[in-house]
Amino acid sequence: MTVDRPASAPAADLDPSPGLDAMAMAAARLRWGTRAKPPGALGALEDLAVHLAGVTAVCPPTVPERPAVALFAGDHGVVDEGASAWPQEITAAMVVTITSGGAAINAFARTIGAEVTVIDVGVASEIPLAAAGPAQLLHRRIRPGTGNIARQPAMTAQEATDAIQVGSEIAAQLIEAGTDCLIGGEMGIGNTTPSAALIAACAGLTPEEVTGPGAGEPPRGLDHKRRLVAAALSRVVAIDDPVELLAEIGGLEIAALAGFYSTAARYRTPFVIDGVIACAALCVADRLAPGTAAMAIAGHRSSEPAATAALAHLGSRPLLDLGLRLGEGTGALLAVPLVQAAARALADMADLPEA
Amino acid sequence: MTVDRPASAPAADLDPSPGLDAMAMAAARLRWGTRAKPPGALGALEDLAVHLAGVTAVCPPTVPERPAVALFAGDHGVVDEGASAWPQEITAAMVVTITSGGAAINAFARTIGAEVTVIDVGVASEIPLAAAGPAQLLHRRIRPGTGNIARQPAMTAQEATDAIQVGSEIAAQLIEAGTDCLIGGEMGIGNTTPSAALIAACAGLTPEEVTGPGAGEPPRGLDHKRRLVAAALSRVVAIDDPVELLAEIGGLEIAALAGFYSTAARYRTPFVIDGVIACAALCVADRLAPGTAAMAIAGHRSSEPAATAALAHLGSRPLLDLGLRLGEGTGALLAVPLVQAAARALADMADLPEA
Repeated sequence: MTVDRPASAPAADLDPSPGLDAMAMAAARLRWGTRAKPPGALGALEDLAVHLAGVTAVCPPTVPERPAVALFAGDHGVVDEGASAWPQEITAAMVVTITSGGAAINAFARTIGAEVTVIDVGVASEIPLAAAGPAQLLHRRIRPGTGNIARQPAMTAQEATDAIQVGSEIAAQLIEAGTDCLIGGEMGIGNTTPSAALIAACAGLTPEEVTGPGAGEPPRGLDHKRRLVAAALSRVVAIDDPVELLAEIGGLEIAALAGFYSTAARYRTPFVIDGVIACAALCVADRLAPGTAAMAIAGHRSSEPAATAALAHLGSRPLLDLGLRLGEGTGALLAVPLVQAAARALADMADLPEA
Repeated sequence: MTVDRPASAPAADLDPSPGLDAMAMAAARLRWGTRAKPPGALGALEDLAVHLAGVTAVCPPTVPERPAVALFAGDHGVVDEGASAWPQEITAAMVVTITSGGAAINAFARTIGAEVTVIDVGVASEIPLAAAGPAQLLHRRIRPGTGNIARQPAMTAQEATDAIQVGSEIAAQLIEAGTDCLIGGEMGIGNTTPSAALIAACAGLTPEEVTGPGAGEPPRGLDHKRRLVAAALSRVVAIDDPVELLAEIGGLEIAALAGFYSTAARYRTPFVIDGVIACAALCVADRLAPGTAAMAIAGHRSSEPAATAALAHLGSRPLLDLGLRLGEGTGALLAVPLVQAAARALADMADLPEA
């Protein structure tokens, strides 16, 4: 089964990534070789700075000093099947918590001076906004939650394209306002199920290989969640197109993140990916705009199995491995000081002293 | 063979650590349980904040906002045996580089606003100070480098005690000036050899289990370095006393770090340990002031095998694993933003929303 995709649908952002700049990377490697330290002694941070030179096409890469978080929120019809330990209303409640500065992502963002913007692209219930908070809330709701992907499409192709477009616009706006390091976050009860399905579809994996407990053991057990992933996958066996994949088994916040990442890559702005939902979005983004995944900085290894599977599929080595499974962009944000330190060291370190 | 330890030697700082505060830790665990997130979703950061509550005896623990680096420098007579790929003069040259702000530790410190103080406790050669730099240099040289530990004691017990005392005083001065997170660093060509020997002696390991390439494959090979470690170990088989261990097979900067850590623990000030030299110092500190190791935050896993062995011996789980093997305190410093984020999250996060 495929989805109608009207010829009049606005094209998703399909420009390919400009790709890593090989000259800047070679210059970065040479520069490391003459810094005041034994060769290779900064380990993964040396690779990170070389990667950053490739992303930005500048050597030494500028130290990212103005990171920002865009957190996309959406709901998932598959929660009707018992996909999550948490009720759907938590999505809207957490949007309020995040907007008022009380979530983990807000606390982490304060430690590095990052602003947080919350974008409702598909929350199912009304957001009971008691008061405006320190994080900006943008209303870009495309539909109130997705369809139940175990039985029906998540959304139309037009809606998927619209969600991609929202993510793309947010990235462009942040970059044009001076953000030099983008962190994509998400909130959506049930969103590890479509993420596992998307990763399985993109990487050619089985439900067993990608399904984990998410934010907590689902009420009907992990085997039931695997069956939901399998049911979703069964409807996309013949689908390669990323917009159609999103429409069939995706999520609105996942589509938005895919647009967000592909646009960050196109602007050559460093972006750090988070856990399993971010990994799913990056798999899709890499089909929307080939080369996007090579530009990503993998912030951390989530404890969800699909995250590890996706990182392997995408060839990304995560910086942190702290057993996080929260989402919101938390694991990505925690890696930003490492990005800053790597860039700062390559830029500022003196030459090796002569003995 | 044991070392003369005159009865008149000033006592090293032997007060035991006050230990982790169980009440504050229990309060921190309870507080995590009601924050706006699934239980355990912040993984190792939850444990870190609980640990921080235990160290400081405060819940929620104060967010460390004024970290500082104390970098102790000393030379090692064992370089005469070909223990290092680098000439001894590099120690003095790197002290100049660090004082003038051009080393990796300076670049990293700038990203978190940490001040760096360099303390010469035992550099062998004159320090060619061209100009004062952004890092303060303190002259507390106890002797110009250690003896060759493959054949003779590193120093006298009095000198070891004096070096411990310098580290202890520096920690106390920084804390009394407002530092709320201590990072110990070191510079000393050849210092992975005494560190491996000290870790083997404290943890009951063999030279094969603790010897690694350090800052680069030693000129006469790794087997030769193992023989140097074995020769050092052969002289301390009957020694348990930490001051005597330092005097026989230690280093001046290692002794200073041991004093630094034990004093940080006594003040209940969080301190983050770095790589293999820091691990050796912590093993000794834990004998000087029992309970010190339990108070330490392990910043990272160095690629040196003795670091992993020491962390296992001390029961510490490192936050980062980035293949670093530079020292200077770099791996410890990179972990500070994680400490800040963990404390900030426990302090600032709202209660779980009611669905």
